[in-house]
Amino acid sequence: ILGCTGIVGQQFIRMLENHPYFEISLLTASKNSKGKAFKDIVNWYVKGKIPESVKNIIVMDTHLESIINKNIDIFFCALPSQIAKDIELSLANSGVFVFSNASSHRMNPEIPILIPEVNPEHINLIQYQLQKQKGFIMTNPNCSTAGLVMSLKPLLQFGIKSVTVTTYQAISGAGRLGIPSMDILNNVIPYIHGEEIKIEKETQKILGSVHNFSINKQDIDIFPSCCRVPVRDGHLESVSVELAKDVDEERIFDSFRSFKGTPQELKLPTAPETPLIVCSKSDRPQPIHDSYAGTPKRAEGMAVPIGRIKKKGKRISFFLLVHNTIRGAAGTSILNAEMAFIKNYLKKS
Amino acid sequence: ILGCTGIVGQQFIRMLENHPYFEISLLTASKNSKGKAFKDIVNWYVKGKIPESVKNIIVMDTHLESIINKNIDIFFCALPSQIAKDIELSLANSGVFVFSNASSHRMNPEIPILIPEVNPEHINLIQYQLQKQKGFIMTNPNCSTAGLVMSLKPLLQFGIKSVTVTTYQAISGAGRLGIPSMDILNNVIPYIHGEEIKIEKETQKILGSVHNFSINKQDIDIFPSCCRVPVRDGHLESVSVELAKDVDEERIFDSFRSFKGTPQELKLPTAPETPLIVCSKSDRPQPIHDSYAGTPKRAEGMAVPIGRIKKKGKRISFFLLVHNTIRGAAGTSILNAEMAFIKNYLKKS
Amino acid sequence: ILGCTGIVGQQFIRMLENHPYFEISLLTASKNSKGKAFKDIVNWYVKGKIPESVKNIIVMDTHLESIINKNIDIFFCALPSQIAKDIELSLANSGVFVFSNASSHRMNPEIPILIPEVNPEHINLIQYQLQKQKGFIMTNPNCSTAGLVMSLKPLLQFGIKSVTVTTYQAISGAGRLGIPSMDILNNVIPYIHGEEIKIEKETQKILGSVHNFSINKQDIDIFPSCCRVPVRDGHLESVSVELAKDVDEERIFDSFRSFKGTPQELKLPTAPETPLIVCSKSDRPQPIHDSYAGTPKRAEGMAVPIGRIKKKGKRISFFLLVHNTIRGAAGTSILNAEMAFIKNYLKKS
Amino acid sequence: ILGCTGIVGQQFIRMLENHPYFEISLLTASKNSKGKAFKDIVNWYVKGKIPESVKNIIVMDTHLESIINKNIDIFFCALPSQIAKDIELSLANSGVFVFSNASSHRMNPEIPILIPEVNPEHINLIQYQLQKQKGFIMTNPNCSTAGLVMSLKPLLQFGIKSVTVTTYQAISGAGRLGIPSMDILNNVIPYIHGEEIKIEKETQKILGSVHNFSINKQDIDIFPSCCRVPVRDGHLESVSVELAKDVDEERIFDSFRSFKGTPQELKLPTAPETPLIVCSKSDRPQPIHDSYAGTPKRAEGMAVPIGRIKKKGKRISFFLLVHNTIRGAAGTSILNAEMAFIKNYLKKS
Repeated sequence: ILGCTGIVGQQFIRMLENHPYFEISLLTASKNSKGKAFKDIVNWYVKGKIPESVKNIIVMDTHLESIINKNIDIFFCALPSQIAKDIELSLANSGVFVFSNASSHRMNPEIPILIPEVNPEHINLIQYQLQKQKGFIMTNPNCSTAGLVMSLKPLLQFGIKSVTVTTYQAISGAGRLGIPSMDILNNVIPYIHGEEIKIEKETQKILGSVHNFSINKQDIDIFPSCCRVPVRDGHLESVSVELAKDVDEERIFDSFRSFKGTPQELKLPTAPETPLIVCSKSDRPQPIHDSYAGTPKRAEGMAVPIGRIKKKGKRISFFLLVHNTIRGAAGTSILNAEMAFIKNYLKKS
Repeated sequence: ILGCTGIVGQQFIRMLENHPYFEISLLTASKNSKGKAFKDIVNWYVKGKIPESVKNIIVMDTHLESIINKNIDIFFCALPSQIAKDIELSLANSGVFVFSNASSHRMNPEIPILIPEVNPEHINLIQYQLQKQKGFIMTNPNCSTAGLVMSLKPLLQFGIKSVTVTTYQAISGAGRLGIPSMDILNNVIPYIHGEEIKIEKETQKILGSVHNFSINKQDIDIFPSCCRVPVRDGHLESVSVELAKDVDEERIFDSFRSFKGTPQELKLPTAPETPLIVCSKSDRPQPIHDSYAGTPKRAEGMAVPIGRIKKKGKRISFFLLVHNTIRGAAGTSILNAEMAFIKNYLKKS
Repeated sequence: ILGCTGIVGQQFIRMLENHPYFEISLLTASKNSKGKAFKDIVNWYVKGKIPESVKNIIVMDTHLESIINKNIDIFFCALPSQIAKDIELSLANSGVFVFSNASSHRMNPEIPILIPEVNPEHINLIQYQLQKQKGFIMTNPNCSTAGLVMSLKPLLQFGIKSVTVTTYQAISGAGRLGIPSMDILNNVIPYIHGEEIKIEKETQKILGSVHNFSINKQDIDIFPSCCRVPVRDGHLESVSVELAKDVDEERIFDSFRSFKGTPQELKLPTAPETPLIVCSKSDRPQPIHDSYAGTPKRAEGMAVPIGRIKKKGKRISFFLLVHNTIRGAAGTSILNAEMAFIKNYLKKS
Repeated sequence: ILGCTGIVGQQFIRMLENHPYFEISLLTASKNSKGKAFKDIVNWYVKGKIPESVKNIIVMDTHLESIINKNIDIFFCALPSQIAKDIELSLANSGVFVFSNASSHRMNPEIPILIPEVNPEHINLIQYQLQKQKGFIMTNPNCSTAGLVMSLKPLLQFGIKSVTVTTYQAISGAGRLGIPSMDILNNVIPYIHGEEIKIEKETQKILGSVHNFSINKQDIDIFPSCCRVPVRDGHLESVSVELAKDVDEERIFDSFRSFKGTPQELKLPTAPETPLIVCSKSDRPQPIHDSYAGTPKRAEGMAVPIGRIKKKGKRISFFLLVHNTIRGAAGTSILNAEMAFIKNYLKKS
């Protein structure tokens, strides 16, 4: 795990505890932490306690020389984008498989942004990479995009003309030190740097179709507006979808309720049984109550609760909630790796 | 002032201190407060200190007998709707002028929902009422609607097809006891009872045109989604407007910047010099910084700051902030009364 | 469980799931909930999800006739004090065992306030009650007191002259609807009705000694000052203890670290392995990180983390954190029942 | 004003607007801001709007060469301590008068920590400095200390044996970027670096007596415990004072109510008419309601509201509130300068 001390890094560690496929053998952090035991440098922010199995792992420097050619098969990357960029390329080139939460390579046409319930077939993009080298990079979407595309996928069959999405994003999305308390306590900040363009471009790519190892991006107008709110975890999103035609309300509900995907079929360890959970109460989903939606235990935070679904003509409006550092980051990255593992993409030739 | 102890009641009191046209002579509250001095029953929540002039006013019971035929010309009403309903009708019938923040009569076709910068001509609806009686009821819009229609008015000239609006509403909007802290601390609640239908219907009425003392409501699709956030004061709104045609971006900006209305022409005491303030910083408006936008001092909280204006084809997106208990309640009600006063509607025949 | 819908009621339900000694057979709530399934009336606020085993229990009215003579051995009471008072007396009189979180009978000299790590011998007070009837009432302390006495018990051997305690109490301590958000968001309230006198009197009783079934209260000056802070769960307390003599610092630390009691000896199911956890980091304990201190899983929230221990002459200062609805309420009540069970006090004659 | 962009710097600017004695002629900030207009670099966080008179002042670099020998008589310093240290010494040495909020020189025996209501006679310490040079440094206390000593001064006549003080400190006390939101939202942090030792040492110095230009520090045991709470402005303090003798309760109240000092006698512009305001309501003072206590307008935030006064034997307990960046920082510094000005200490020889 590259970048093990941040919140996403911690989620990787938490979610990989006793994992049936993967075992943590290396942790990296910034130079200051080099050579120290994980438990002595981390300020543990995520659910539960530090897993015993990683407490005493000696943390390495996030530096290519420290981590390359160490007999490690896959890397999970929770680094800031600017640091991730080159390291990931070098690692993939050296023959390993990189599952990255960083945004650096998401818009690269040879690299998939994968969310296995939504676009499992995009995994084929890695063929491009494998023609040139033995390793590859696979990314998961931005936190807000992850929730959004999961809610849009079942509506795609009805034809989507436009999507207007307004977010209520948790402070953990900016990292542990990202948002000063004087900026957000008793306040809302209607600006998140670079977020809106990510939501637009990533959604169009993820919902696009693959032809001959290349993606035709989905032609949907996306109008995103992003805000930071004083909430610790869980991005709420207000979504308004303009469909191509007027569809019966019950069909809309059914499409959400019956939505399943490849991870559910393959019964992947981190797959939630029900990826979209339609809330029965009229004032839900809410961050404090619903962020950890998802069963079984390993999939808590992997389901996307959705509520207040309304239809007016061709417009469908609803609220969804996505746990930003689980389904919106580490969790999807792990699910991607699980799918790749089961589908035999992680075999060394 | 009917209902003087709530937050809106307090704003009426604060804003009417040393008012050039009006003087407070009667305050009402619930039965428990009857006969006590205002300063002894109020838990002062609004800006500044309790005005000396009202501190020792003996509060009356909010009961028709206590307040009717007392030689009072106008009543400002900050009562809950269900209580306001009958009292307002009786008062108007008795020959006085009622400026009400309650929602009870807003959708009555003979009663205007007035916001003087937006639909000053709607004041003519009171002719209906004056044909039957000597008094009238005039209302101001719901708090979220107030901000929204001010931002839509300058765009109306370009033709508005639809408006998608998502709100971040402050807890003061639900009154002092409205939202339990366990419901909102570290949370967002995607539901406000009755709010969305109010935004839709009131906006269509306010932006409608008057013909022969009757309103043709504006034919715009409004898609509102409302949320409560842990912020004390100031409703932020994310607005996305679909115009009928593609308009040059600079014209949009100009229409916001140059927007003025009747209150500015008449130089009404509570009128803000610039009703829409286009924010220059990219992360504004924000509740803690911009809620009290507006000059001069008496008009603080009466201006609507607007920011992050973006254009993509026919879609205009922006954020606006409205001080929910000033422009969204007491302030507009006072502005309405000022306009009525200057236009000689408050003369006793 | 009497009063099953409040936060303490929910903690009882959560902590009694799959309990080795007890099984939930009856739930009560207010009249409105009568006859409905638990899952349909509860707004689940506590950790995890509603246990399957109680979801469909039909809730009874909290009324003596509905609950008496139903073949239930023990009642856990999470009712407000004024409602609890008479019901508890009647239940005990009818021959059942009542473990109550209500404050109504705590200062009754025949009823113990028990915290098994601190004053297990006080259980003998129930003999008084058993002379008159077949049932008894046993109480647990007020939430703030529970944490405080656990930290004072190990210091008692050195002689305690006075205790100055200032609290930072979570909003959940006032119940789900107790604190309006307008009162506490971005604020601190230096007043909690009745709390300071409870801390003083309960502490003196709990730390007192039992002679001939009667308590000599401990003669310590207690100076409590209580505040509500905008935190959901976990009461932090700043404690300053004046000892009778100057004790070596290391002995103080040791007394905290080595502190164990009857529940640990008896290995009661809800007993934390280490009841006082001395924090190693200099800025701990903190509500968000340490509220659920305690192992094993069933005892999460039952340990009291303690930190920033300082000694200056005879003064010992430190901060402690107590999960107010677990160790400070339902958890201790359950621990009391577990001890009574193991010690054969719950046998029907 | 040295360090004009931080919150204390902004308070200096706000409070010096239209000041009868002083006029702002120079502003400094970090290198990045050099050469820019104040309005373009500041993120205005304090009450009201940026004063017109400073908006266009070109900000200088906080570097000795930029500011020395510029014909400026007095400097207000809002710099971080480590930066302030040498600059202040050099400035004083160059012959100007420095009023500093930095802690660097507070414990220097030749430099007073002045709070004019409490220890006006300590101003004489500057004679030491004036023997060596033409300028001097005068400091105001740490924010928490400022409130505390104002409440202790009237009790000093009864003999104070010990003071136990526990704080609830606002996030603005750590500066605009000081506390990450992930650390404090829904949390309390029982640690503020260096704060407790400052409260202890500064209080003993301020309450000490001057003999022959030297201070005999007051021999009181001070037991401080400091916490950060999620509140924007206003430090609340829970104070428990052990008096030397048992004093009649009414005398205690009177001593608080009648407390006045030199600033009130001299009618200094920034002096509050009533420096200690005894709250009549049982749940006050509270940060959101009482932080700006003090009249006239210029003295808002300069009074210290005090409430919940209780007496038990020789122990007096109460809560006080101090606006941390006004009375606890810029305001007292300005008050110090006003007193020095009126008493002719600011004359150039």
